[in-house]
Amino acid sequence: MAQETPYHTQTVSGWAAHDSSGKIEPFIFKRRENGPNDVTIKILYCGICHSDLHFAKNDWGITMYPVVPGHEITGVIVKVGNNVTKFKVGDRAGVGCLAASCLECDFCLNSEENYCDKIQFTYNGIFWDGSVTYGGYSKMIVADHRFVVRIPDALPMDAAAPLLCGGVTVFSPFKDHNLLGSGPPRKVGVVGLGGLGHVAVKFGKAFGHHVTVISTSPSKEAEAKQRLGADDFIVSTEADQMNAAKRRLDFILDTVSAKHSLGPILELLKVNGTLVTVGAPERPFELPAFPLIFGKRAVKGSMTGAIRETQEMMDLCGEHNITCDIEVVTPDKINDAMNRLARNDVRYRFVIDIAGKTSNL
Amino acid sequence: MAQETPYHTQTVSGWAAHDSSGKIEPFIFKRRENGPNDVTIKILYCGICHSDLHFAKNDWGITMYPVVPGHEITGVIVKVGNNVTKFKVGDRAGVGCLAASCLECDFCLNSEENYCDKIQFTYNGIFWDGSVTYGGYSKMIVADHRFVVRIPDALPMDAAAPLLCGGVTVFSPFKDHNLLGSGPPRKVGVVGLGGLGHVAVKFGKAFGHHVTVISTSPSKEAEAKQRLGADDFIVSTEADQMNAAKRRLDFILDTVSAKHSLGPILELLKVNGTLVTVGAPERPFELPAFPLIFGKRAVKGSMTGAIRETQEMMDLCGEHNITCDIEVVTPDKINDAMNRLARNDVRYRFVIDIAGKTSNL
Repeated sequence: MAQETPYHTQTVSGWAAHDSSGKIEPFIFKRRENGPNDVTIKILYCGICHSDLHFAKNDWGITMYPVVPGHEITGVIVKVGNNVTKFKVGDRAGVGCLAASCLECDFCLNSEENYCDKIQFTYNGIFWDGSVTYGGYSKMIVADHRFVVRIPDALPMDAAAPLLCGGVTVFSPFKDHNLLGSGPPRKVGVVGLGGLGHVAVKFGKAFGHHVTVISTSPSKEAEAKQRLGADDFIVSTEADQMNAAKRRLDFILDTVSAKHSLGPILELLKVNGTLVTVGAPERPFELPAFPLIFGKRAVKGSMTGAIRETQEMMDLCGEHNITCDIEVVTPDKINDAMNRLARNDVRYRFVIDIAGKTSNL
Repeated sequence: MAQETPYHTQTVSGWAAHDSSGKIEPFIFKRRENGPNDVTIKILYCGICHSDLHFAKNDWGITMYPVVPGHEITGVIVKVGNNVTKFKVGDRAGVGCLAASCLECDFCLNSEENYCDKIQFTYNGIFWDGSVTYGGYSKMIVADHRFVVRIPDALPMDAAAPLLCGGVTVFSPFKDHNLLGSGPPRKVGVVGLGGLGHVAVKFGKAFGHHVTVISTSPSKEAEAKQRLGADDFIVSTEADQMNAAKRRLDFILDTVSAKHSLGPILELLKVNGTLVTVGAPERPFELPAFPLIFGKRAVKGSMTGAIRETQEMMDLCGEHNITCDIEVVTPDKINDAMNRLARNDVRYRFVIDIAGKTSNL
């Protein structure tokens, strides 16, 4: 696989993993020239998504090394191509998981390009020109303007970064299930209070729902209720709590990326309820048939979001003042942050201060 | 658990399993007097459902022995209670999985009593009076008239029997997903060509859809296409066939009760497609997250059907001349039939000729 093309003339400093140890090290590479449909973005911040960990360590068996992770990117536009009218130099911009799609299929035409089967991802993808894509753990990125969103002025650039993947990943199921606030209030469950889950709680409350957090960590109850505004909290390892809550919830968003059984969680759903999983554990779920069948329940997947809904989410976050709770780290601390993330030791998202002065590059 | 009450005064001949060997033997027991809401049915035929096998052998760990299986019952009404106006002596009647429900909850009031959480099943259930329910492997049954349906004159009583469970189990998901023919034709997949699957193919074609059978048995292709009318056939163990059919189907009905991975089957669905499982394997499915997430697909359960939809299905079967393909056996051959069913050696449903002259009881 070609890493770059003759048009990859711009030298960029970044950080990459080179093998399945997952260790992140400084890495100098080339990006393409800014084409007519491109914008060049000086990266300010990049969130550390759980997927970055999976890709760095090749947990899914599909990593092309060296891999420059990062798809929660905020920064400032420094160059625009001739065809670009939506952005100008100096604009606050964000790049998420998507680098490109075919732009012609029904999904692309219907603003669902995240399900286009020719989709190209921001890192560990193969771009149209045959080069491997490199992500946001780097000082600069060249992005097709059709896959770039605007960051509202009301949102800080660091705490907005994780919205580009973690945020839209939980926003899209809310939107898909008519839970943005125009319908009746619902009983919503959020499984896992991490990078995705804590934003899901914020969305749930902002859109007027009754929100129950389901977690293995009793220690998170106070924070879930007092700071994030959750209405209820269930410790999933406590059988009596789980039993008492059977058939109570209309909708569950399962954000956990560790392998787990869906059976006990499904029992919390009312008849006809839906659980959407966005956590992507590398090993299959255990899905017992009975809770599905006896409750006519559904388990559904959802993958990140399309660009139009990412912009819609950003604008709603600007209105409702929703951001991610973050811990900012300098690039020399990426490995420490990833190790802590693997232990769930972060509340709730690490964001790399790419342009910060403590960077050595 | 009390097996009967002082009102259980009617002696009935039937067939029961007494332990986890699952062996079925003649069994004499008592049924309740015909109450004001009851009808008494002389049983003519009873289908052998795969669930009967699971209950006879206690595969699900919930069997109360002795168990008289059978919930695909057709017969003739021989007595009606004072409150019963819908039926009269001599009517052709059917009893399925449901013996009773609370009649008061939202599900019961909304003709979804199969999801009432106080539901009582036709066998291996605890009836309101505290007695254990006994099913249709018996000469006679006393049933609450609200859980009895009418068998259209156009349908033969033997081939109609399996519609009461197997039929409505696959009909209900068709109805739930707007696939009864009033909407646009869809690409429908049916996994497994057995007692449930072959009726699903008939429904799919009767309601105007393009039907693909997905099976592990290449030998079933000719029959699926030529006799049942399926449009397409995929051997699920042939990777090239499965790959060629990715993202083609709108809806899949999975009728397989053996443990299997849902991943390769889910890949056959279009984005936003739904797979409904009705097979109830005793061990959990393997559900890989990626096919769910990348295709925003859903796996849903469905359990038998409500009485109103069972009657609707029966009437539609009468109009479309849809019955099950059956092999009729005498009661002394129940064990042989069950052994063959365990090996999938039946096309497609065994039905016991309860009132036949070869019975020894």
